[in-house]
Amino acid sequence: MSDQWQERNKPARLERRYIFDEYSTLRDFLERAAELSEQEDLFPDMGFGKDYANITIYGDEDSKELGDIHHHFAQELDKLFNLKQD
Amino acid sequence: MSDQWQERNKPARLERRYIFDEYSTLRDFLERAAELSEQEDLFPDMGFGKDYANITIYGDEDSKELGDIHHHFAQELDKLFNLKQD
Repeated sequence: MSDQWQERNKPARLERRYIFDEYSTLRDFLERAAELSEQEDLFPDMGFGKDYANITIYGDEDSKELGDIHHHFAQELDKLFNLKQD
Repeated sequence: MSDQWQERNKPARLERRYIFDEYSTLRDFLERAAELSEQEDLFPDMGFGKDYANITIYGDEDSKELGDIHHHFAQELDKLFNLKQD
C-alpha cells in the first residue's frame, strides 16, 4: 500500500487522492475500481472531477475499525493506478 | 431540470443526489455521465458509493456564475437517470 494513503480516525478510514493526466485514463481507473468493489463486496466512497479521484475507504460497518480487507483494497487500487501508467 | 436539483451559492453550484437500486445501474449512469462530460467539456464533481451518486455542477470558472450550460447539463443527467429506469 502506497504511503500516499492517509489513515484517519473518527470514523476510521483510509484516504487517497489520485491525479490523472487524461480523463480517459481516469475513467478506465474508475471502471476497474468499481469492478473491484463488486468483486470484494466493499464500496468505498469515490469522488472525481476532471483530473482527480478521491477515495475514502471506511472501516468495518459493525466494529468501525479498519482491517485487512480495507488495506488490501487500498493496495489493489494502487495496482490499478500503476497499471495505467505503463 | 428536475426540482430535486438544489441551487446553492458561495460558490454558485447545482447539487443533486441520485439513488440506485443496483450497483450495475449506478455504474452505467456514471459511465454515461462521464461521456457527457467529455462531449460538453464540463466536468462536475461526481461522488458515489454503493447506492448513490452525488453531483455538484459548479458555475463558470471565470464569472463563477451558473449559466445555461450548467442547467442544460443537469437536465441531461436527469435524462440519463430516467433512461435507466425503463
